[in-house]
Formats: sequence, C-alpha cells, structure tokens
Amino acid sequence: MSEINMTTKDLIDEIPESSSMRMGRIAREKREQIDLINLGIGDPFFTTPKNIIDSAYGFMVKGKTHYESAQGVDKLRIAISNYLKNRFDIRYDSSEIIVTPGAKQGIFYAFFLLIEAGMKVGLFEPSWLGYVPSIRLSGGIPVFFNLDNGGFTDESLTNLSEEKVDLLIVNNPTNPSGKVWDKKELDLLADYCAEENTKVISDEVYHEIVYEKEFVSLGKYEGIGKDLVLAGSFSKTLSMTGWRLGYVCVKDKKMRERLTKLQQIIATCPSSFAQFAVADTLEASLGRTEEMVGVYRKNRDLLFETLNNTRLKPTLPDGTFYMWVDVGEDGEDFAVRLLNDLGIIVVPGRDYGENTQRFVRMSFGIPTERIEEACQRFENEFGK
Amino acid sequence: MSEINMTTKDLIDEIPESSSMRMGRIAREKREQIDLINLGIGDPFFTTPKNIIDSAYGFMVKGKTHYESAQGVDKLRIAISNYLKNRFDIRYDSSEIIVTPGAKQGIFYAFFLLIEAGMKVGLFEPSWLGYVPSIRLSGGIPVFFNLDNGGFTDESLTNLSEEKVDLLIVNNPTNPSGKVWDKKELDLLADYCAEENTKVISDEVYHEIVYEKEFVSLGKYEGIGKDLVLAGSFSKTLSMTGWRLGYVCVKDKKMRERLTKLQQIIATCPSSFAQFAVADTLEASLGRTEEMVGVYRKNRDLLFETLNNTRLKPTLPDGTFYMWVDVGEDGEDFAVRLLNDLGIIVVPGRDYGENTQRFVRMSFGIPTERIEEACQRFENEFGK
Repeated sequence: MSEINMTTKDLIDEIPESSSMRMGRIAREKREQIDLINLGIGDPFFTTPKNIIDSAYGFMVKGKTHYESAQGVDKLRIAISNYLKNRFDIRYDSSEIIVTPGAKQGIFYAFFLLIEAGMKVGLFEPSWLGYVPSIRLSGGIPVFFNLDNGGFTDESLTNLSEEKVDLLIVNNPTNPSGKVWDKKELDLLADYCAEENTKVISDEVYHEIVYEKEFVSLGKYEGIGKDLVLAGSFSKTLSMTGWRLGYVCVKDKKMRERLTKLQQIIATCPSSFAQFAVADTLEASLGRTEEMVGVYRKNRDLLFETLNNTRLKPTLPDGTFYMWVDVGEDGEDFAVRLLNDLGIIVVPGRDYGENTQRFVRMSFGIPTERIEEACQRFENEFGK
Repeated sequence: MSEINMTTKDLIDEIPESSSMRMGRIAREKREQIDLINLGIGDPFFTTPKNIIDSAYGFMVKGKTHYESAQGVDKLRIAISNYLKNRFDIRYDSSEIIVTPGAKQGIFYAFFLLIEAGMKVGLFEPSWLGYVPSIRLSGGIPVFFNLDNGGFTDESLTNLSEEKVDLLIVNNPTNPSGKVWDKKELDLLADYCAEENTKVISDEVYHEIVYEKEFVSLGKYEGIGKDLVLAGSFSKTLSMTGWRLGYVCVKDKKMRERLTKLQQIIATCPSSFAQFAVADTLEASLGRTEEMVGVYRKNRDLLFETLNNTRLKPTLPDGTFYMWVDVGEDGEDFAVRLLNDLGIIVVPGRDYGENTQRFVRMSFGIPTERIEEACQRFENEFGK
C-alpha cells in the first residue's frame, strides 16, 4: 500500500508506541519496589509561578470563562509580540500571532496545512520524537538529516540540497541534544531556504532555557519570513505544561488565515482565562524563569560532571533541560537495565532518529536533590 | 479536481466564512451606535460556578499544573462514568472514556479517524454548522437528510437507507432546532444502524438542557455500542466554554486506542487542573445546572410567546438554549436588517443545512432582562 493512499486509521496504527510510553509502563510496575528517579519526563518539575495562578483565578472570578476568538485574545497576542521583540529581537505584529493550545497543536496545524500527500519533510537528527507522528498523520514522509558532528556545515547543506525536501522543521534549542544553533549555522540554513523557497517550521519552545551560548531565532531572518512558521510556548518558559498554551507566528497572511480557520474548526480557541493570565503576568514572570534556569544549570553541571567520569559519553547541552548520552550499546537495553538495577528512568534514543539507537535522553528538569541522588547511583554503578 | 485529491489547503479554502462570523463583523461596526442584544452566540452567559473555580485554584496551587495522561485523568473519567450512569442510565466504564479539550475536538478526532476519502457522512437538517467543516477536512462528503416535519419517521428511514451513508452524526438535543429526539425515533435509528453497521457519532453536549421532555441517550442502545462514539462536554452543562473540557465515550477498544493516540499526537492532553476541578465538583455542581436551566426555560417561554404573536414562526425548543425561527424570507437579509434596525444579533440559517435559508437561530442563553428587552423590540417591530 502506498503511503499516499493510506487512511488515517492505517497511519495511526503504523505509528509505534514510543519507547518513553513503554518505559512508563515498566516504571509503573517497579515503583512499589524501588525509589524511582524520573529522568524521562519532558516536563519541568516546578509548579506554575503563583502570580500566574492568582491572575488566572482573578480572571475566572471576573467571568473570563467564556469562548474567546479563534486567533487568541488581543491582549495576549500583543504581550507575545512585545516579549519576542524585547527578548529576542524578533518582529511579529500581534496580528501575525495565533495562540494555540500548546505549541504542539500549533505545529500539527502547520504540518496539516503545509504537507501534501507524499511530501518529504526534513528533520535534523536527533529530533524530538513528537514530530514524526504528526508529519505521518498529515501524509508526509519524514527524512532525517545527520548533522556534521553535531553542527550544520557546508557538508550538511549538500546532504540537504540533494534530498530536495519541501518542508523543514528545526528545533532550536534542540530536544533531545540540547543543541543551540549558532548564528553561522542559521545563516547557512536561512540562505538555502530563501533560495530554494523551502518552507520552515522553527520550534523554539526552549528559547528561554539557554546557558552560556546566545540564542538566535530563525524569526530574525527576513529572507525566509514568508515561508516560516515560528512556534513558541509557555509550557517550559513558565512551567505551564498542564495549561496547554502556546503560539505560532506567521507572516504570510493566507497561511495565517488558514491556521486560524483550522483552529476554529478543530479547537474553537485555547483556554480563555489562561490567555488573560499570561497576558497579564508575562513580563513580571520572567524573573521566575531566570530562577528556574539557574536550577537547570546547576543540575546540568552536576549531571554532566558525573557522567563524564564514567564510560558513558554525555554531550554538554547549551540549552533545554535534556542531556543526550552515548551509552555505547543499545539504548533501550541500557534504559531497561538502568530502570531495573538503579531505579532511574531515561528515554531510549531510538525514536529520535534513524541512527540514535546507542543514545538515551536524560532530563534534568527535576529538583537538584534528586539529580544528586541520581548522580550518586550513576557513580556507584559506572564510576571509574 | 475531485474531492478525494484535494489538499488540506484546498479544503480549508473552500470552507466559507460562516454567517455568524460575518454577523460578528457587522456587529463590531454597529456597537458604537446602538445597544446591541446578542442572540447569536452559542455560549451561556453564566460565569462558571464558583465552587469549580475555587477547586481549580486549589489544584493549581497544589501543583496540578503539569502534563497528565493523554486519555485524561483517572478521577475525572471515573466521575464521568458515574455521572452518565446516575443521570442518564448510560453505562461506560471509566476506561472507555477519553477526556478531550472540548467535545468539538473529540468529534474532530472521531471524524478524522472514521472518515476515509470520499466517504458519505449523514447529518439531519438543521444541523449544527460546526460539523460540515470538520467532515470536509477529514475528506468526507456531507449528506443532509430532512426530518419528516421535524421527526424521524419510517419515511426518513427510507431516505436514509437509499443514500447508504457510512457514518451518521446525531446531535441530541439539537443545535439549532432545540429538538430532543423521542425514544421511538431513536429506536428506529438505532435498529437501522445496528443492521447496516452504520457508524454513529452522537453529540449530546446539551443533554442537561432539556425542558418538559425526557432525554434519551443513544448510549443506551447496546446494539450499536461498538459503532458509537458518544460525545459530551462541560461547556454548556456547567457554563465552562472557555475551559475547553469535553469527552468522548467509545466501547470499541481499537477505536479508543486510536483516539487516545491521536490526542497524544495533536494535543498531548486537556488542561490538567480543569480536569481535577471538574472531577472534584461535578456532582455538587449539578444543582447550579438546574438553576441555569430554570433561567433558560423562563427565557424560552418569554421569547416563544413574543415571537409566536408576530408573523415570524418560532419552533418551541424541547432542549438547548436555541430557538429556530422561520422568518419567511432570506434569513441572512432578515438578520442583517434585524441588526441594523433593532440592534439584535441572530445567526442566519444558511449554514445549518441545504434548505434552511428561510430560518434564523436565536440563542436565549443570556440574562432574562436582555431577553425582555429583545422581546420588547420584537413586539414593537413585528407585533400584530
């Protein structure tokens, strides 16, 4: 059966259970016997800052419990526009922003609209495991590209141009590798996309969680503006994963109208009071984000130092709260053994690309004392 | 271009702007000049009951601000299972329920999974205008069926069986007509669907808003259980439209797994604290629902009596907070004139079917004093 003629049912049945779901099942069986440490989850441990919660409560009580416009409330779109300008020097007018129930749903909309049956969609390996199912559901064919020793170089560009993909998704900072793209790399990529009219989705939901390096957004490249969908979220920035609130920025008017219409048809609108609360508190909450990033940095340094003194090969992440670790054997075997023997949950690398079997992803978005406990266990087991 | 080969872009471009969106635009231009009364909106005017808001706040503060399972939190699924059993004698195990960000998104999942390109999907006219875009996006062909003088009879059944649709959507109680299906009608329909293995989506989001008549759910018919997707919501029942919280009930295990997987891919999960809050307060909040329905009943009686004394021909709704009114001329012309001359917003009937141009939908889910004011204006303009 050709990909093009597959029904949604076929497509969804073909999408395998992700390794992380499988790990979760084993973990549920183990949790009676052992003090589990979960380095598997892509969800920062912090409760949403209290000022945001209080603001949401205030808006609920004031009656902001109703449908709002499909594009998102004006106030929040204006707040996002200002935030992107002030923090990252990205210029999107509030009319060019669509608030979505999470960046993931916004990215699904974009895939669903941009992908035609059989279209090739490029991803850079390792690539967040959520994209492939969404691409497949939209009728696209995921094509993985290896980076040149972790970097996007002239050689990477040659590989890319040979495949002639119609759409690319870039995740910067990258889940799971923690890579923050250099300006040089982005220059190269943006030039290519502008020349080839390749459409790009840039998923920048971790843009606030960056350590020594400077984060540069693809949104700064005017040359690809009309072909770019920029996705952001409050899930990680403000530890609001359970609220379901993200956004996409789109310069192309037609694409924006389609996206808004699609959201109207599928979702009606994102949570109303959540939108008002974030609009009201976004600027004031960024201090809390900084504090959270401080904790992630401490955790990162601890975990990296520990693992670097073992036979495992961690990559020091420039951003995100993930560490990508070469375990020198099948990542799934390693993860199962780690869970059974040390009570530590990690995500096997398999689902992040085609040549990622030897890796696992470890999240350090958990309390520092838990990272310390994990490090103790790693040291005892793998220490030189 | 055949429907089957249309891209999502083509499909979405083909979906016209709904009349209600057009009316909204005119209304925004008028609101400076006249005291507008909005009978156009499908959103009850009540703020969400305070006990639910307080509960949500408590859960947020306690840290329920994180991702939850894609199927929905156990507690809420158990609460829904008990609620459906106690209120409507419908038996779904909590494992057969999937919580969704609104019933609309759940129904979209169902269409997306059940419809294959070119499949005929039946709707009963007048039919809520949200279904057609969702069916079209999923590659289906909407087929409207007229009810026999508002009822589903042997003759309606003959029409239905001649078309051999693969999937049917029933909205009971019906937006916009306020029809509550008789047990006799449902018996006839369920028998047919069981015999023909026709799949059915039953959208019962207005099941609490019923007046003199008894509401019977399609969920009671065991014969069609495996082919049924039952959709419900808290949006109308508890005046929570802005929270985005609904659910679908599915007996078929495979379909349920697909739906959950689809939700995982598109949305991750519905709002976490919203789920805990409703689980915690659902039973206690039903008294408030009763009070709200009392207001809708009063509004309905007022509006019906007034319109019945004019040249307009209203249908007395058995459920919902909508009145379906035969205006004896083009509904859109009427609606525009009504807005310009009387400052009253209604929704033209055009989008609710193929033979619905002479109708408008009026919502009475607004404060009674506003309904009184609207009635005064109707009386002055159309009174005998």
